[in-house]
Amino acid sequence: MNIDDGRSRVIIEGVTPEIDGGRFPIKRTVGEKVVVEADIFADGHDTLSCVLLYRKDDESQWKEHPMDFLVNDRWRGEFTVTEMGQYRYTVQAWVDDFKSWRQALVKKFDAGQDVSIDLLTGAELVDEAGKRATGSDGKKLKTVALALRSDRETSNRIRIALGDELAELMARCPDKGLAAIYDRELVTVVDRPKARFSAWYEMFPRSCASVPGQHGTFKDCEGRLPYIAGMGFDVLYFPPIHPIGRTHRKGKNNNPAPGPDDPGSPWAIGSKEGGHKDVHPQLGTLEDFRQLVAKTGEHGMEIAIDLAFQCTPDHPYVNEHPEWFRWRPDRTVQYAENPPKKYEDIYPLNFESEKWQELWAELKEVVLFWIDRGVRVFRVDNPHTKPFHCWEWLIGEVKRDYPDVIFLAEAFTRPKVMYQLAKLGFTQSYTYFAWRNTKWELTQYFTELTQTEVREYFRPNLWPNTPDILTEYLQMGGRPAFMARLVLAATLGANYGIYGPAFELCESQAKELGSEEYLDSEKYEIKKWDITKPDSLRDFIARVNRIRRENPALQEDWTLRFHPIDNDQLICYSKQTEDLSNIIVIVVNLDPHHRHSGWVEFPLQTLGIDHGQAFQVHDLLSDARHLWHGNRNYVELDPQVVPAHIFRLRRRVRTERDFDYFM
Amino acid sequence: MNIDDGRSRVIIEGVTPEIDGGRFPIKRTVGEKVVVEADIFADGHDTLSCVLLYRKDDESQWKEHPMDFLVNDRWRGEFTVTEMGQYRYTVQAWVDDFKSWRQALVKKFDAGQDVSIDLLTGAELVDEAGKRATGSDGKKLKTVALALRSDRETSNRIRIALGDELAELMARCPDKGLAAIYDRELVTVVDRPKARFSAWYEMFPRSCASVPGQHGTFKDCEGRLPYIAGMGFDVLYFPPIHPIGRTHRKGKNNNPAPGPDDPGSPWAIGSKEGGHKDVHPQLGTLEDFRQLVAKTGEHGMEIAIDLAFQCTPDHPYVNEHPEWFRWRPDRTVQYAENPPKKYEDIYPLNFESEKWQELWAELKEVVLFWIDRGVRVFRVDNPHTKPFHCWEWLIGEVKRDYPDVIFLAEAFTRPKVMYQLAKLGFTQSYTYFAWRNTKWELTQYFTELTQTEVREYFRPNLWPNTPDILTEYLQMGGRPAFMARLVLAATLGANYGIYGPAFELCESQAKELGSEEYLDSEKYEIKKWDITKPDSLRDFIARVNRIRRENPALQEDWTLRFHPIDNDQLICYSKQTEDLSNIIVIVVNLDPHHRHSGWVEFPLQTLGIDHGQAFQVHDLLSDARHLWHGNRNYVELDPQVVPAHIFRLRRRVRTERDFDYFM
Repeated sequence: MNIDDGRSRVIIEGVTPEIDGGRFPIKRTVGEKVVVEADIFADGHDTLSCVLLYRKDDESQWKEHPMDFLVNDRWRGEFTVTEMGQYRYTVQAWVDDFKSWRQALVKKFDAGQDVSIDLLTGAELVDEAGKRATGSDGKKLKTVALALRSDRETSNRIRIALGDELAELMARCPDKGLAAIYDRELVTVVDRPKARFSAWYEMFPRSCASVPGQHGTFKDCEGRLPYIAGMGFDVLYFPPIHPIGRTHRKGKNNNPAPGPDDPGSPWAIGSKEGGHKDVHPQLGTLEDFRQLVAKTGEHGMEIAIDLAFQCTPDHPYVNEHPEWFRWRPDRTVQYAENPPKKYEDIYPLNFESEKWQELWAELKEVVLFWIDRGVRVFRVDNPHTKPFHCWEWLIGEVKRDYPDVIFLAEAFTRPKVMYQLAKLGFTQSYTYFAWRNTKWELTQYFTELTQTEVREYFRPNLWPNTPDILTEYLQMGGRPAFMARLVLAATLGANYGIYGPAFELCESQAKELGSEEYLDSEKYEIKKWDITKPDSLRDFIARVNRIRRENPALQEDWTLRFHPIDNDQLICYSKQTEDLSNIIVIVVNLDPHHRHSGWVEFPLQTLGIDHGQAFQVHDLLSDARHLWHGNRNYVELDPQVVPAHIFRLRRRVRTERDFDYFM
Repeated sequence: MNIDDGRSRVIIEGVTPEIDGGRFPIKRTVGEKVVVEADIFADGHDTLSCVLLYRKDDESQWKEHPMDFLVNDRWRGEFTVTEMGQYRYTVQAWVDDFKSWRQALVKKFDAGQDVSIDLLTGAELVDEAGKRATGSDGKKLKTVALALRSDRETSNRIRIALGDELAELMARCPDKGLAAIYDRELVTVVDRPKARFSAWYEMFPRSCASVPGQHGTFKDCEGRLPYIAGMGFDVLYFPPIHPIGRTHRKGKNNNPAPGPDDPGSPWAIGSKEGGHKDVHPQLGTLEDFRQLVAKTGEHGMEIAIDLAFQCTPDHPYVNEHPEWFRWRPDRTVQYAENPPKKYEDIYPLNFESEKWQELWAELKEVVLFWIDRGVRVFRVDNPHTKPFHCWEWLIGEVKRDYPDVIFLAEAFTRPKVMYQLAKLGFTQSYTYFAWRNTKWELTQYFTELTQTEVREYFRPNLWPNTPDILTEYLQMGGRPAFMARLVLAATLGANYGIYGPAFELCESQAKELGSEEYLDSEKYEIKKWDITKPDSLRDFIARVNRIRRENPALQEDWTLRFHPIDNDQLICYSKQTEDLSNIIVIVVNLDPHHRHSGWVEFPLQTLGIDHGQAFQVHDLLSDARHLWHGNRNYVELDPQVVPAHIFRLRRRVRTERDFDYFM
């Protein structure tokens, strides 16, 4: 037990949000609230006062916000974060003798008891407060104390005792001498809004050449920007842009015997042209990249690059820092392997090296190098194969100086490992979304991500496809499957992304049955995509992204709720703003092959709609409007048309043509 | 982040049991197990080794027990506590290069790959282990390393590499250089078995006079011991035995105007005859008390006394330590009040006194005084009206030197306050049992107490009545209600107690309708109980307590499970020993007025009984035996006979008369 003063009587515990006993911070974006609750109580029946203390990390003084009593000794307070960086918060509480005294006074007076001594007790409390007061309050309190002790009529003195003026005076100089303070300072990391709401487009720049057959360049990418921005994305993510190794280079379809013109995988980083701080010469120069970053910004987007901390045998590190690699007894470097599989084109960095500190420092230098070139968003390749402590240090170091930097963790691995990476600092995280296809799976998983403690630190970023993942659902389901998965990703997740143009062109050919690898994967060759194809989903995607931008309900994840619908192929869920001014209801037909219908049950009461009242649902995808009545309403979705509704709910009043936006 | 070495790659988190981030200890009794689980993982795919570390608080060296992998990165280990006091435990884990190497070797060899370099790598690992080895292991490891490097046939060297001998050698000198250790040391308080399993009998010694009308004495109590021990109780608890105050003494039925012979409430402690370290003269002397303690022990019971830290105006403390009380402006001491109610016979101690340290020290002296007189069990009156920190300190101080002391918290207050008192050290706690009467209430409450984290620190002690609590259920239900509540208390709780002889004599007269106060409460007068009444429940209670003693399943709470039964007036639950050698199934008719029947559903599979197999249930109350078949079986209970079954399950084999005890 660690108490300075045994007279301190208040217990503060069960503080939320708090991750692992305060070991890890929670996450917020600028403008969001932190709602803090705690169990607070003392012995006996005295009245408590409780305040939430918070401050920006670089401020020395706590700000204070009163907490309100809820029920069952639970108290709640909140504060809003207004700047990027870190905030600290904790809870303070004390036995409030003045409030206790007032309550007792009322009860005794109402029971007709003599309160003359109680009034004197109150005068003593007021005197004590006077000693703590600043400014003119001291004098005012002295006057009150005199009045309480005076021979005025009791009812008169009671009025003073219970008056608002005294309450306010006393509240300004509370007796915190024996106040308890929660024994942990909790932290929230505050990111910019894009950490919470973003639409990513992954693209291989080398496939962007305007002249067929050529190696695309950063310059070529500039020409592609209007197309991508036109679809409504705001992050343009490139696989690694660094020199690609030659030794053990993989050919088309991961062929260990490449042809002479095979460009290799961008994730095989390092050649005689350089390493992680260099640009693959065929893409252009660092200056070209800097210009592309600027142009991308002009289109309302920003570039994300890939942090893939691994090397080919040709990487300069291998010669310059042999101590960063694991050496085998035969004096060769240990290549990556997952026995019996061998990845001889990849040398993993050895984080158990004696020189780990230099290695960490260099990785930080890599990040800072690209920050210097205007990059603020990093997609991190396989973070789960590098030590957790390294990430915590690296992200902490970078964000201390650049709190606007976003790190997306590409860890397709076990759940606790994914959550750990999020806890220790990753801004966003890839999820299992790609493999959650049924209503049950989607409901379970997204309830876990948005309604449990996980949401405090793990920000999902939903990808229906990636260059590594062409799911069986997409392989089998055709265009309706792509549309359904797009709507799910874009509305279940405020953060989502697609790998294009494969996605909008509904590329669905797998390398072989049972594989999730693309046939003729872009990872190993330059692709020529016909982005002008008439059946491209680009317009559909543009519409979905516009709906996301226009409807704040879709810009956060925590209000997600699933609603019953009596057909397992149909899923229904909603999101809404806190003030109910924007309510979006999504219905998706999960079966890409058949038309399905069902009855949606929707909890109107919680939205302030009377059971008997009709209301309008406006399908923002088709622009159709329907009148709905009561809790159960009919929906029908034909995947050959559009496999989803994105309804905006509007409360109907008076006549059919006379609508009032909620609230 | 606090890491000594950035190369440490293992994360340990989610350790259970752990209360409030390790702020509070868990509780066990001698002979019980502590099953520890943790989430443990590292980056990448290497194999881990994990151990549970534990030690008695006064030992400097950790003992070590291997943890087993469960699923989803969860590991489990356990240790048994064998002595009273405190144990510490934590978790250690490391990347096990040798195990990883062996796994890879097997896979490569099975895939027909060349493993010659791998064997050399293994030899290096063995060499390193040799440097850490003690005794003859070093030499043995050197021999193995030589063999692995030799030109013997590969299959031969593989056999050595994968052999048990090498595995055992390596396990004895693991490379813990980069091991992670969980950053908290967790504590378990270990009590004697009575903390877990006890039957309490509360009795006013002053009502035990053998001569009617006289004030009972400790000597008289000696004569009552065979009666109480005969019912099978093992704790005999006395309300305060100290001198009773005169000022504002309460008369019969709490009358503020007492008669001259009214004895007053034992909880009004302190008179000119003394205070908390004195004995009420009419009960006898300290020497009489010491003798009673000894005699009680001879009957297999022990005395519990009441710690009621409050004073009458006549208590010696008031003059000797005026600074321990709160003084009002009129220079009178503040009496207890809960406005508008006044308790002028009670002066609460002021724990906000400047002299709080002396006050705490004196309270500790009081406890030690009675410990010196042979008392090891204390029932603490209203602990929730004294500061939490004081209890934590006091209990910690006492149990450091006397780990066998049991403190029972009588806190009938809000749930979080009750749980807090348990967390900070109370051995057992009163519960809401008295007011949980319906199947739903009992199921909810006892599931919370026995199947959630609460069970780690809160040990329920179930009382169907107390001198303050004559529930409406008992008032209305007559003898069947007393029988039902006794069976519920004695089987839902391994710890339970009754206030007698009021209980066994089915005393059910309340002071008035809507009150839970006894009419002519023993708190304010000496009662003459006719314990020989033929309809006394003494034999029934004796039988229930014997069943408890003979069936270890009833001596702990954690295995409690409720089972469906298709009648809301019938409740069914079971307890069992870990090895299934003792399985007890209880059915209680909660309606004291009507016969009820229903079909019990019992999960036979989990008890190793085939669905088609008949089995015997032996009612230990009535001694009747029934053959049951399958999951659903019929029960019928007439409250006018016995409102409960306490079945022991026995697996039936071969013939009806040929039974085999489980396992």
